[in-house]
Amino acid sequence: MHPPAALSRHRERLEEHLRSLFESQEPSVLRRMLLYHLGWEDPEGNPAPSAGKRLRPGLTILTCEALGGSIEHALPFASAVELVHAFSLIHDDVQDRDRMRHGRDTVWSIWGEAQAINAGDALMAIAQQTVTSSTAAGLSPEAALIANALLARRTLEMVEGQVMDIAFEKRTDVTENDYLAMVSRKTGALFDAALGLGAIAAGAAPSTIEAIGRCGRAFGIAFQVRDDVLGVWGDESRTGKASGADIRRHKKSLPAIYAFTRAEATQRDQLALIYGRDDVSDTDAKWVLALMDSIGASQYCAGVAGEYRGAALRELDSLRIPPDETAELRQAADFLLARDY
Amino acid sequence: MHPPAALSRHRERLEEHLRSLFESQEPSVLRRMLLYHLGWEDPEGNPAPSAGKRLRPGLTILTCEALGGSIEHALPFASAVELVHAFSLIHDDVQDRDRMRHGRDTVWSIWGEAQAINAGDALMAIAQQTVTSSTAAGLSPEAALIANALLARRTLEMVEGQVMDIAFEKRTDVTENDYLAMVSRKTGALFDAALGLGAIAAGAAPSTIEAIGRCGRAFGIAFQVRDDVLGVWGDESRTGKASGADIRRHKKSLPAIYAFTRAEATQRDQLALIYGRDDVSDTDAKWVLALMDSIGASQYCAGVAGEYRGAALRELDSLRIPPDETAELRQAADFLLARDY
Repeated sequence: MHPPAALSRHRERLEEHLRSLFESQEPSVLRRMLLYHLGWEDPEGNPAPSAGKRLRPGLTILTCEALGGSIEHALPFASAVELVHAFSLIHDDVQDRDRMRHGRDTVWSIWGEAQAINAGDALMAIAQQTVTSSTAAGLSPEAALIANALLARRTLEMVEGQVMDIAFEKRTDVTENDYLAMVSRKTGALFDAALGLGAIAAGAAPSTIEAIGRCGRAFGIAFQVRDDVLGVWGDESRTGKASGADIRRHKKSLPAIYAFTRAEATQRDQLALIYGRDDVSDTDAKWVLALMDSIGASQYCAGVAGEYRGAALRELDSLRIPPDETAELRQAADFLLARDY
Repeated sequence: MHPPAALSRHRERLEEHLRSLFESQEPSVLRRMLLYHLGWEDPEGNPAPSAGKRLRPGLTILTCEALGGSIEHALPFASAVELVHAFSLIHDDVQDRDRMRHGRDTVWSIWGEAQAINAGDALMAIAQQTVTSSTAAGLSPEAALIANALLARRTLEMVEGQVMDIAFEKRTDVTENDYLAMVSRKTGALFDAALGLGAIAAGAAPSTIEAIGRCGRAFGIAFQVRDDVLGVWGDESRTGKASGADIRRHKKSLPAIYAFTRAEATQRDQLALIYGRDDVSDTDAKWVLALMDSIGASQYCAGVAGEYRGAALRELDSLRIPPDETAELRQAADFLLARDY
């Protein structure tokens, strides 16, 4: 399944804009880490094909266009959203001790944890710089400031979600409501910012910025649920993650929470045992998978994703934009929820 | 030696402003970590006396006042500078595996590395929020935006300096120029921002903001050199650090670089051996200390600090502000360079 034309259409300009943010940096260990993580270089500094999917900045640009704005105004915000996402991945990999992401070594596994923490911090600062310098692209200081405030608020929420996610790993009593509160922050908040910043770039009214942000958040929750499903049932050759990876990492993803909720008492005790073990064996992982399959966890998750997709579309409809103008945004959204990697 | 009245005068209002930034946060692991790190609570959430010295935000306020601005305008920027400093300490402790800071357990040693990384990230986002919301204190969107851009640029520099510092730990060929390039970023950049933001709060002209920033940076370098001296010769009961701590951590602080440069060939080989060892013994540390003493490393460092102090004062003089109005800023600066903790 290929990304729809809408998402790829501006890919080149976005990539060019993103790269321009690093042009003035002098050669350094830091620059090396950043260009590697963003997918432009290999660890030795040789050119590499860009690895990122750039989904979130694509949505920023499509939102701006759907609301009648220009790509020039959207680019700095789109890049900033991608940089915040990129920073979160670097720190997430350190936190989870993940050595691989999308088939590539993670930054910390090459340069060590201490420098990887720095690389993430640097991206966060560059994201902030990028939003503040959006006035150079013709945005007003007021718009740049509103964008900055929104991005900072959503970044903080994202970090709150990450704190909850890590705290959940040690608990076996996480409810679906706990989970939804967590993913609304961990994933939803940055999708909220991605769409909200697109609306700010288009000069939209505050109520529109908020509604489109809620649309982005609901959509981000659906995206995360889909990601959770891929984390358990995904094809390793497509996702770059071992099948059952999230079971081995004790992630309280939606399939796991559903299993804890729906399993019988003896099964639940066994689940708690497995999720409490430092090392989850193949046998354990297979047992959990079989349990999830037997209670229809995958179908249940698809239903939850569908609900949030519906909520996102209702927010979009509430804006009464002619359907023609939001068609690309809808296509992109549908693609993201159907992806198998 | 007590802080001069100038630095303590606004302490209460600054503390109140800093605390107000966390009032709307719901109780959570994240909030617990932040209130602990900022010195207001113990790890269980009971009130604790504030532990921070709040030197940098004190300088922001004094700079604003020296340039004719009001404390109301300076407070959001002062708080943001302290939050960036606080974030850098949390991450620094994770990177250095330091279990203690100023006689208290570090955040990671209580909540683990993963959550400590999140705590630092959160403070960075809150700093950004604080600057953007400075318009509520009466600053113009333009001023808030300039402040945001300056803080982001200096934060990035600070991270660059941290990357260099960590990379230096593995090298034995670090020159004094390398060192100065590193500390200008690691420490100088945030002092530059502290004073620069004070000038922005006072509505100063761009050339004044730049000059006072250079003053802050030179001053920050002098401050770091003093810190390096305390890291080797400081009294543990005052600094909270074990004597010779920086030798054990292979820190390429100025005394170490001076020793590498001035030692005879056989001594240099021995130094390289010791700085290359995973564990530095008491005997090793004492030998290095004796070598540093024999070549007058402490006096040499005092001279370098004096040079940068002089450069900072020359930048301040260049602004031709009546001496009365900068007297407090000068007192505060002198205190910081004479401190023994």
